[in-house]
Amino acid sequence: VPTERILFELFLIFAAAKLAGEIFERLRQPPVIGEVLVGVALGTHALGLIGHTPVHEVVQELGAIVLMFMVGLDTRLDHIRAIGGRIVAVGTAGIVLPFLSGLAFVYATEGGLDEAVFIGAAMVATSVGITARVLSDLGVVDSLESRVILGAAVVDDILGLLVLAIASGIARDDISPLGVAGLLVGAVAFVVLVGGLAPRVVRASASKIEAAVIPRGPLVVALAVCLGLSALAGLVGLAAIIGAFLAGMAFAEVPSWRLEAQVAPVYELLVPFFFVVTGTNVDLGVLTEWSSLVLVAAMTALAIAGKLIGCGGAAWGMGGRSATIVGVGMVPRGEVGIIVASVGLAEGIIGPRLYGALVAMSILTTVVTPPILKALFKERARPPPRERHPRTDEIEGIGG
Amino acid sequence: VPTERILFELFLIFAAAKLAGEIFERLRQPPVIGEVLVGVALGTHALGLIGHTPVHEVVQELGAIVLMFMVGLDTRLDHIRAIGGRIVAVGTAGIVLPFLSGLAFVYATEGGLDEAVFIGAAMVATSVGITARVLSDLGVVDSLESRVILGAAVVDDILGLLVLAIASGIARDDISPLGVAGLLVGAVAFVVLVGGLAPRVVRASASKIEAAVIPRGPLVVALAVCLGLSALAGLVGLAAIIGAFLAGMAFAEVPSWRLEAQVAPVYELLVPFFFVVTGTNVDLGVLTEWSSLVLVAAMTALAIAGKLIGCGGAAWGMGGRSATIVGVGMVPRGEVGIIVASVGLAEGIIGPRLYGALVAMSILTTVVTPPILKALFKERARPPPRERHPRTDEIEGIGG
Repeated sequence: VPTERILFELFLIFAAAKLAGEIFERLRQPPVIGEVLVGVALGTHALGLIGHTPVHEVVQELGAIVLMFMVGLDTRLDHIRAIGGRIVAVGTAGIVLPFLSGLAFVYATEGGLDEAVFIGAAMVATSVGITARVLSDLGVVDSLESRVILGAAVVDDILGLLVLAIASGIARDDISPLGVAGLLVGAVAFVVLVGGLAPRVVRASASKIEAAVIPRGPLVVALAVCLGLSALAGLVGLAAIIGAFLAGMAFAEVPSWRLEAQVAPVYELLVPFFFVVTGTNVDLGVLTEWSSLVLVAAMTALAIAGKLIGCGGAAWGMGGRSATIVGVGMVPRGEVGIIVASVGLAEGIIGPRLYGALVAMSILTTVVTPPILKALFKERARPPPRERHPRTDEIEGIGG
Repeated sequence: VPTERILFELFLIFAAAKLAGEIFERLRQPPVIGEVLVGVALGTHALGLIGHTPVHEVVQELGAIVLMFMVGLDTRLDHIRAIGGRIVAVGTAGIVLPFLSGLAFVYATEGGLDEAVFIGAAMVATSVGITARVLSDLGVVDSLESRVILGAAVVDDILGLLVLAIASGIARDDISPLGVAGLLVGAVAFVVLVGGLAPRVVRASASKIEAAVIPRGPLVVALAVCLGLSALAGLVGLAAIIGAFLAGMAFAEVPSWRLEAQVAPVYELLVPFFFVVTGTNVDLGVLTEWSSLVLVAAMTALAIAGKLIGCGGAAWGMGGRSATIVGVGMVPRGEVGIIVASVGLAEGIIGPRLYGALVAMSILTTVVTPPILKALFKERARPPPRERHPRTDEIEGIGG
């Protein structure tokens, strides 16, 4: 594919996403839904105007990274640490129910144990991107519910990584307890070390960073750390966005740099690529058969119920509405579910029918969440802030 | 190449470029040279830490686009139009001498007429990126000399496109006057129409753009237009950066949007990719043979002399120092020279020896320019502004 063609597609993605965002915003719907639908309409499975190349995957990933970095900038380590117990509880509870219900359902209706275990594993993964975007659009990233969701999503990603490793190992008959343990140690060490140390390192070296001669030294250092930790997270098997989120959280320690205002233009440019390219992966064709439709409906219902009951239940001490917000926020499977499904198809663990159902479930859980989340926050009657990214120091006192 | 690997390389490119920029800035050298050298050192021809994939090409292109968009934002159409005659004279003069001297030299020393005509064509192209970056770093984009250089580079690109089309046509023996005329009409129409109309369209629709509901409406529209015009420029055969430059110039009409301040973070993120990836294309291996070294030295001398005498001569009416600045500013061949050389090699018009010499000439003309340009502007004793991108309204009265 020549560079000119890619350039045209990047223009198309960006312009169409922003246009759709504008229309959805005027209809008082979450703009992110418009961006995903643009991808569905223009992607390879529909109009075919947007292809799927490594370039598309990289801009998609960069969009997700900038999104989670921005969300991290709104998240203080102290605030997360103060609710650590609840975060672990919600994250863990959100794994058990979807895994067991997915496993049981597929084993009972469709076939082999290998398949069933894999589907269970695929039902587990939370894609925090869409929830994070809705929280960001609503200006409530620093609310207690948001902090529980964001923290639990990190726990979720670690456990999901393990479950998937075990499920793939079972299917390939070469499961190694040592390998799984190594994966766990690496992932936990990354999150604990980076999450715990990076904020201190940033605070301690703030004056040195400010002494940089190149323009916008703090922004440049923050972006470099964000890219570096994203790559490192990928290296230990976690999602790159976990690294980006932790990087953002580290730089949230120096509010005087006003990094949110500086990153905002980069956010506006890159984040749409994440949602549009995610949309292009959707193949509505799987929904044309009746039996598939039933399968999709059942798996989607289980996927929603599993997170809602598991996460919402573990968060019940926060009060009914807050627990519901947490449960709903953990529902989307997004691109994570689609990626897991692709791995299962490529390795021959699941067939095209279950693959299609997983993809459809991932999309449906992703599309239903934003309006519900928006409504739940709205009923709490906080005036929606006009500017998407209030400065950290402005919203400091609002949350919790 | 998996996405994790690409992510790591993007981190490496960004971090190394900024570190080199910081070091060069402290040594009072142009930081852009540090960025190019990082690419040379880490690229496939040296340490091999940075590969060459379509992703690298796209981020390189995006960096160049943002760079030229930013430069365009500092350029008012009125200021360009007022010096239109001089711009056309400088651009045209910069074509004739390099073409004829390159042709004559290679025909006399190396071989066939086809090769000689192609080398002449390859000597023609100006890569305005490096000059634009130096002007931007020095904060003198709105000076009279800068405006002449930027305008003449557009003229240069149109004429260079034609010369190359003719040279390739001669080498392939299928030159069509109609095809060449069509190319000329398309390129000129694009520049005249877009350059003349876009600023008016932006001014006329400013209030509508401001009424957008999505955050940062003006920035979003400007970025969309920038990507769109870049793609369109590529479509008519021009360099994409011409489209980006014209887009920037169009939005320079609404200084109250402060787009420079908003684009600056995007600039800091993406522009280094242009210079580092450009550096990775350099193969210092071609400089190891004695006879090649002589060839490179001769071609580089002709390339420099051709622009210096041609462009400087056509700008002589501006005074000696200003004419020298214009001449020096047009010297770099950069990635344009390398791309032309690659086409010639791929189509079998030139051999590896002349290819290596063209690449080396492109790099050398690119590396010698920034320090000289910096020194020439410094001698004019303007206090170098601390912030790289002064707001348009602040520097309005300085230039010319």
